[in-house]
Amino acid sequence: MPGNSIGKLFKLTSFGESHGDALGGVIDGCPSGIIVDIEFIQKELDRRRPGQSPFTTSRNEADKLEILSGVFDGQTTGAPIGFIIRNNDHRSKDYSNIKDKFRPSHADYTWEKKYGIRDYRGGGRSSAREHVSRVVAGAFAKLVLKKYDISFTAYTSQIGNISIDSCDFSQIKENPLSCPDAEKAKQMQSLLSEIKEEGDSIGGIVSCLISNVPVGLGEPVFDKLSARLAHAMMGINAAKGFEIGSGYASAIMKGSEHNDIFYSEKGRVRTKTNHSGGIQGGISNGEDISFSLAFKPVATISRIQDTIDSEGMQTTIKVDGRHDPCVVVRAIPVVEAMAAIIILDSLLENSSFVE
Amino acid sequence: MPGNSIGKLFKLTSFGESHGDALGGVIDGCPSGIIVDIEFIQKELDRRRPGQSPFTTSRNEADKLEILSGVFDGQTTGAPIGFIIRNNDHRSKDYSNIKDKFRPSHADYTWEKKYGIRDYRGGGRSSAREHVSRVVAGAFAKLVLKKYDISFTAYTSQIGNISIDSCDFSQIKENPLSCPDAEKAKQMQSLLSEIKEEGDSIGGIVSCLISNVPVGLGEPVFDKLSARLAHAMMGINAAKGFEIGSGYASAIMKGSEHNDIFYSEKGRVRTKTNHSGGIQGGISNGEDISFSLAFKPVATISRIQDTIDSEGMQTTIKVDGRHDPCVVVRAIPVVEAMAAIIILDSLLENSSFVE
Amino acid sequence: MPGNSIGKLFKLTSFGESHGDALGGVIDGCPSGIIVDIEFIQKELDRRRPGQSPFTTSRNEADKLEILSGVFDGQTTGAPIGFIIRNNDHRSKDYSNIKDKFRPSHADYTWEKKYGIRDYRGGGRSSAREHVSRVVAGAFAKLVLKKYDISFTAYTSQIGNISIDSCDFSQIKENPLSCPDAEKAKQMQSLLSEIKEEGDSIGGIVSCLISNVPVGLGEPVFDKLSARLAHAMMGINAAKGFEIGSGYASAIMKGSEHNDIFYSEKGRVRTKTNHSGGIQGGISNGEDISFSLAFKPVATISRIQDTIDSEGMQTTIKVDGRHDPCVVVRAIPVVEAMAAIIILDSLLENSSFVE
Amino acid sequence: MPGNSIGKLFKLTSFGESHGDALGGVIDGCPSGIIVDIEFIQKELDRRRPGQSPFTTSRNEADKLEILSGVFDGQTTGAPIGFIIRNNDHRSKDYSNIKDKFRPSHADYTWEKKYGIRDYRGGGRSSAREHVSRVVAGAFAKLVLKKYDISFTAYTSQIGNISIDSCDFSQIKENPLSCPDAEKAKQMQSLLSEIKEEGDSIGGIVSCLISNVPVGLGEPVFDKLSARLAHAMMGINAAKGFEIGSGYASAIMKGSEHNDIFYSEKGRVRTKTNHSGGIQGGISNGEDISFSLAFKPVATISRIQDTIDSEGMQTTIKVDGRHDPCVVVRAIPVVEAMAAIIILDSLLENSSFVE
Repeated sequence: MPGNSIGKLFKLTSFGESHGDALGGVIDGCPSGIIVDIEFIQKELDRRRPGQSPFTTSRNEADKLEILSGVFDGQTTGAPIGFIIRNNDHRSKDYSNIKDKFRPSHADYTWEKKYGIRDYRGGGRSSAREHVSRVVAGAFAKLVLKKYDISFTAYTSQIGNISIDSCDFSQIKENPLSCPDAEKAKQMQSLLSEIKEEGDSIGGIVSCLISNVPVGLGEPVFDKLSARLAHAMMGINAAKGFEIGSGYASAIMKGSEHNDIFYSEKGRVRTKTNHSGGIQGGISNGEDISFSLAFKPVATISRIQDTIDSEGMQTTIKVDGRHDPCVVVRAIPVVEAMAAIIILDSLLENSSFVE
Repeated sequence: MPGNSIGKLFKLTSFGESHGDALGGVIDGCPSGIIVDIEFIQKELDRRRPGQSPFTTSRNEADKLEILSGVFDGQTTGAPIGFIIRNNDHRSKDYSNIKDKFRPSHADYTWEKKYGIRDYRGGGRSSAREHVSRVVAGAFAKLVLKKYDISFTAYTSQIGNISIDSCDFSQIKENPLSCPDAEKAKQMQSLLSEIKEEGDSIGGIVSCLISNVPVGLGEPVFDKLSARLAHAMMGINAAKGFEIGSGYASAIMKGSEHNDIFYSEKGRVRTKTNHSGGIQGGISNGEDISFSLAFKPVATISRIQDTIDSEGMQTTIKVDGRHDPCVVVRAIPVVEAMAAIIILDSLLENSSFVE
Repeated sequence: MPGNSIGKLFKLTSFGESHGDALGGVIDGCPSGIIVDIEFIQKELDRRRPGQSPFTTSRNEADKLEILSGVFDGQTTGAPIGFIIRNNDHRSKDYSNIKDKFRPSHADYTWEKKYGIRDYRGGGRSSAREHVSRVVAGAFAKLVLKKYDISFTAYTSQIGNISIDSCDFSQIKENPLSCPDAEKAKQMQSLLSEIKEEGDSIGGIVSCLISNVPVGLGEPVFDKLSARLAHAMMGINAAKGFEIGSGYASAIMKGSEHNDIFYSEKGRVRTKTNHSGGIQGGISNGEDISFSLAFKPVATISRIQDTIDSEGMQTTIKVDGRHDPCVVVRAIPVVEAMAAIIILDSLLENSSFVE
Repeated sequence: MPGNSIGKLFKLTSFGESHGDALGGVIDGCPSGIIVDIEFIQKELDRRRPGQSPFTTSRNEADKLEILSGVFDGQTTGAPIGFIIRNNDHRSKDYSNIKDKFRPSHADYTWEKKYGIRDYRGGGRSSAREHVSRVVAGAFAKLVLKKYDISFTAYTSQIGNISIDSCDFSQIKENPLSCPDAEKAKQMQSLLSEIKEEGDSIGGIVSCLISNVPVGLGEPVFDKLSARLAHAMMGINAAKGFEIGSGYASAIMKGSEHNDIFYSEKGRVRTKTNHSGGIQGGISNGEDISFSLAFKPVATISRIQDTIDSEGMQTTIKVDGRHDPCVVVRAIPVVEAMAAIIILDSLLENSSFVE
């Protein structure tokens, strides 16, 4: 069923399995005349690439982008951008022992039941490796949005029970966790080493800030910008919760505390607080858009677990495949990519109104 | 911009403003041959209707449903179901004093900037009164889903800092807050009375359980069932956060705790825990689907607030219109309705695979 | 199944049956700030209204438009425009005798098989009366397009074997057939009187010219402007064929004859001929867009015909309901309306590219 | 702008340029468990492949299909099928001389104006070489439809002023034109040789028959099966006209002649004639679906033609690239492919109604 596309006017259609020949996608609707900074796109892919830190899987993939169409003389042409990323380091044998067993909290069981067949190697289509296609599309979106100075900063705000106290964006590049609190970043790393040692995994939270978004993006009623962001974010593997602005904290607040008071600053309408997270009535109000995304602990752990096989018989499973102890680190560029896709799509949608 | 439709195969297109002639919608894709239980649909509307408890606005609307098409001899025909609900108790004068001012944390400012014009009466199109159309479509979806025994139970799980300790569904109809914890319901009512007295408002959380969902609903990759629910829920006015299953709590959990262990029960595959909230890999696994939705405090409060006018000048505003102290109570049938729309739509989508 | 919407950014969702309470629709995506000239819209409806000439059914319907939303202070607000047109002169009794019989070449049989139930009164949803909703949406589209000076002229170019020799647009309003050839218009009227006398019906062709379309509308590959027009036109009841530019005549032409040679006229690129019909490579080239649409004879005739009943038994049928001898006359405003919807939608789509 | 996808539940997204690295596409929504007969798919591609007869371009392309995803153990998995076809015989130099000139009746001018940039090599994205992606998707659709015995037969019914008198399907494979009239096929071949000699091109008509379509496909109102077929067919390069059933001939017919009389044959409802072309009220009625498609003469001819350059200055152009004298021959597998896509998509759509 066609759930492999996202976006209306800037649209990514994604394909590929973890251990197939290649992953890839088609970006349809990318405006023409955009200079394609290949180096930038590859760097975005590298941010998500495995093996970049001790806390990510040791699978070794170059994740080398091959653009097949839609780019001519270094610029986008308006034609669809087809691209692929070859899988090199498959190691399909790692997974043969789980062919007939359902890994707990994985997609194995539901996919088997839905489709009657599944590529069990490394999770097949349900693998987070699919995210590479999103990062490519997000990188193109960022290239388009650069001229509007719209920027995206996702970061680790919590791993396990360690959450940040301070938020200094200059710290993000200083640690392998993209954490804006240097002190907490260290504690998080210790925790991750511990978790890895235990053969276990742990959950976490990614936060994201989008700056310089113009007023007016988002379409009421059902396609509120917040709703579209929620859809895009909850479509990331392992996502369990989404908040915009004050999020769940708003439940305990009074209107008199929560309301963002308008004022005028150099002719521009601003709000004193930003509990709205940059979106009011489903439409961007010009303040920074802020949201967070909760991730469950990676389902793949190295411990023996009870489960059933495809015949419904009780059995145990031990997964030896490489895996990350925490999904958060490598999810960060994916969160930014999905945000960029939605913002660009909304911008293109909105421009139809402007004359 | 066309953001007023939701659903692919079962699709609601909604229209209408708070103080216009009528609200309504078109339901396209409703299967034919469904007995239209008008009484049931009207009851669903009544659950959301204002003036039903001391904690909802005193606006008096019959919310009488008028079905214009798509139903013949008491059954759906497969043709689109057009329906309207007339607005009777407008009191448009209430809002004339806010014509040129932006109510803090309302949609006034963003709509004005996006469209250059807005129906300021009662929030116009951005009013939560638009939700009536959703309740009608949700009621039709429930009628279709009845034969699959799929049921929806939304309830108040938190208001302000009072959250439920117990969850006895038989209690839900025993208090005006649809709260499954009788003791906490009383405390919540006291809190709401207090808040109302203060001319203030308060946030809260609605939880929802969907039972008897078949395995296999939801479309990977971008249209995971969780992502579609998130989209539908975050499109409800005042929604600030969404969780599926363990949600934000999963961030502090280890994989070994969080993983839902499979077992076989009378030939049916079950999981011992349900941190997945009934959805794995974006596809329903047959367990109850559970999610929650955080709502901010209603932006309309009776106090004088600072704001700016449409010229950008500093001013104050006092809104005298009727309003609820907490959006949660009347959001409950809306949450159920949106859930029913998404589940039915996913079911129709999935059936294409089955032969 | 949701086939009752057309358009992407300017979208009409239509509902209603021939003999139900009302027909109507929702226009989503209409730009805001458009002055709503109600008189113009009503006149467009009147062009299609039955009983306007001896060659149309005598059913008497005021076709009075009721706008329910999306318009405030005489202007569009960007919110969806809900509208209804009440059915007054039902005469449902006319059709009771055909309840269990399938009228030849009507939609009775296929709808019955597809949905298992049908509103048999006057064809129900399959009636051409549904076209009123399209005319309303088309009128709104024309109002938006007025500022671009884009205009639409549909006319009768053939009825039976009488086709026009000359094309003088000033003649179109001079005869009840909207025929630009005065002499042929007379012959067509004689033919129609004859056909009516015989209790029979006859086919015909409507041609349409769209002027002042900017260069660049239409989206390759699958959504060529010609393909979208074909889709919209072939969705009109009784349509059997569609041509763009040289159409079927191009089959016998050589490239050296058919190619439209470019030249420059006052700095504007023009073509010497217009076999392309204003569309090249699926995209408008600035020349007039010209197309035609063939209509079959109305299936409803007053003669006794062989057919079968819902049990599959051989029987005869005689339909006494009012009907037009030729669909062409009343199809003209519908063709224009559908063209306007597609052109506006393409214009909005295209503007996303312009900055 | 996203016009590179077709289909709702079975959806092809196409990418690639004539002289880029590769063409390809993503098929989303292909049912799982379909045996992938690679040989069959490759044969379908070969039918469209250049250099197969004296009447097609001498460009030499293997058109070797590479499937990248969605197929596992020889079967479809329900995951999107990504595929590519490498371009080998580019000869990009052929086209360098037309870089700054607009070929008459080509897409050069409109694409340049719409996008501000274009890949001029061999027409880039606007080249009919894009059709390979459609043939692949159509082949997959045919594989799915095989179990329903639904079959597709497109054939040449007219080239220039030579049209078929007889229709013997066994003749189709006996001549390089896929013409069911052996005698006329010879005449057509003589004509094509002549036209090729002249350095000119000629138009033609492709007809198509779809057999064994179940009753009930197609969605009223706007997505009538005839309207969807028209959309798909008119999206094929060089298409100028579309007819369903009696088509333009219906314009001169009376209702009493045109109406298809129902009768019962072995418990199955049939019609005595099939002017409806298998579709009534927009829905398939179980009879063969028959339609035709008119193609203009190929715009690329070897003669010197007047035109303008990108500065708007008068100039002449002589195109030396390889081209077909008539598009019809190689369009035949494309017509079948598009038909198969639409029929499968409609079948999947319809099955949601069946329970």
